[in-house]
Amino acid sequence: MVKIAFQGERGAYSEIAAKKLFGNNISISPSFSFEEVFSKVKEQKVNYGVVPIENSLYGSVFETYDLLLQNSLSIVNELNLQINHHLLANEKYKLSQIKKVYSHPQALGQCSVFLKSLKNAQIIPAYDTAGSALISLNDTKTPTAAVASKTAAELYGLKILKSNIQNNKENFTRFLVISRKKNNSKFNNPKTSICFELNSMPGALFKALSVFALRDINLLKIESRPIPHKPFEYVFYMDLSGSMEDTKVKNALNHLSEISIELKSFGSYEAGKTVKS
Amino acid sequence: MVKIAFQGERGAYSEIAAKKLFGNNISISPSFSFEEVFSKVKEQKVNYGVVPIENSLYGSVFETYDLLLQNSLSIVNELNLQINHHLLANEKYKLSQIKKVYSHPQALGQCSVFLKSLKNAQIIPAYDTAGSALISLNDTKTPTAAVASKTAAELYGLKILKSNIQNNKENFTRFLVISRKKNNSKFNNPKTSICFELNSMPGALFKALSVFALRDINLLKIESRPIPHKPFEYVFYMDLSGSMEDTKVKNALNHLSEISIELKSFGSYEAGKTVKS
Repeated sequence: MVKIAFQGERGAYSEIAAKKLFGNNISISPSFSFEEVFSKVKEQKVNYGVVPIENSLYGSVFETYDLLLQNSLSIVNELNLQINHHLLANEKYKLSQIKKVYSHPQALGQCSVFLKSLKNAQIIPAYDTAGSALISLNDTKTPTAAVASKTAAELYGLKILKSNIQNNKENFTRFLVISRKKNNSKFNNPKTSICFELNSMPGALFKALSVFALRDINLLKIESRPIPHKPFEYVFYMDLSGSMEDTKVKNALNHLSEISIELKSFGSYEAGKTVKS
Repeated sequence: MVKIAFQGERGAYSEIAAKKLFGNNISISPSFSFEEVFSKVKEQKVNYGVVPIENSLYGSVFETYDLLLQNSLSIVNELNLQINHHLLANEKYKLSQIKKVYSHPQALGQCSVFLKSLKNAQIIPAYDTAGSALISLNDTKTPTAAVASKTAAELYGLKILKSNIQNNKENFTRFLVISRKKNNSKFNNPKTSICFELNSMPGALFKALSVFALRDINLLKIESRPIPHKPFEYVFYMDLSGSMEDTKVKNALNHLSEISIELKSFGSYEAGKTVKS
């Protein structure tokens, strides 16, 4: 049975993503941090890790980008999960009684309009949406709720006090599957992810983009992250259309390596489908 | 007396930045959120706001970028503040007694190596470094410490249990000064900040960068942020060398507007000096 690590407690959106990707018949390994997910994959404790890389409202997950570079792992698959947040609590409470609401800061932000309407509730950031469901289950003294998934409600026997509480229904999280080995399949709609550091000179990024533009390779995403020992210099992450096996992608990457201090490839994979959580 | 809003309690790094920029003889307006800082500037409750835009280790402050676009305010000045974190607590406690450590998640991350060495202490994220100093001052039951500035220690009469606890000494936060009016001064080393959304087509970003590269205008920073109602499409923020009064910058921005759905300028300002906190 394939074993998958993800960050968070049982019922986390990452677990939902893992099951959409690999089916329900998997062995799961909930982890405290993204770092732990990467370590488990690296040390062969699991077959794959499933990690969020960006949310369509909140933006990139910095930590995942940094861990991709720090670890020599590959991206082998991708999924866009539509996120539906719900307010969960013990069956005995009504919405008007709720005094505390726990969730991950990103989930709290995504439900800010609804949460502001709860006049008597204190909003408290926690490390994980599903972990917050556990907190609300275990806090027997105070009427406590959590912003989490339907799966978390089912798993912990909590009631949905209010469903679909996110500000914006167009709320998607893109998840990556990370592995020790590159994906060498044939793809229908391949993507390739890379990371590079450029020589600091005028027009450096323009030249880097030109290696793709001049070969009609489409860029899907660019992200910059700071370099710890070089204040206000950046490493660039890029997703592009095409597979590393395509001649023009190979040529573009060779060209890019000529003008990069460092160039790393995370491999090619099938562009992610969009599914509901 | 000039009045300045910043996010956080008295003693926050933003207050230190404000005093480095405007001197000690200012009236300050501590605010709960970045949103509140922008509102106070907009509603003329203060003259300026001082907000962090990026940290050299952690990266960009997403919320500031999003608020820049949402509000029609200008950037009029900048400062790079070297961040030195300290562990503060009530005078009666020793380091070995500490059971809880509060701070902003970014500050906790920046001190992760030192904090891992505190075997008995629970690490708890809070909304603000200086606010955490207040928590440790007010918690008389448990030996509680905070990761915060020297200024916060002095202000609240707390002892520095351990100084300079950050993992990496090359730790700088870049602050912006926001105002209702553009800065029309003459600059020695000007920067200009803009934001634009491109038509979705192959090579769009390459073409956008070309308007600067072809005029030898140096790019200092690029950041992408999601567009809420267009999942996995992005708006780009850019800092470039030069003033909006320079003919070649004017021409480049006119050129960029030809290929942009929207182009917004936050104005020109003097590139920030680096000072110690």
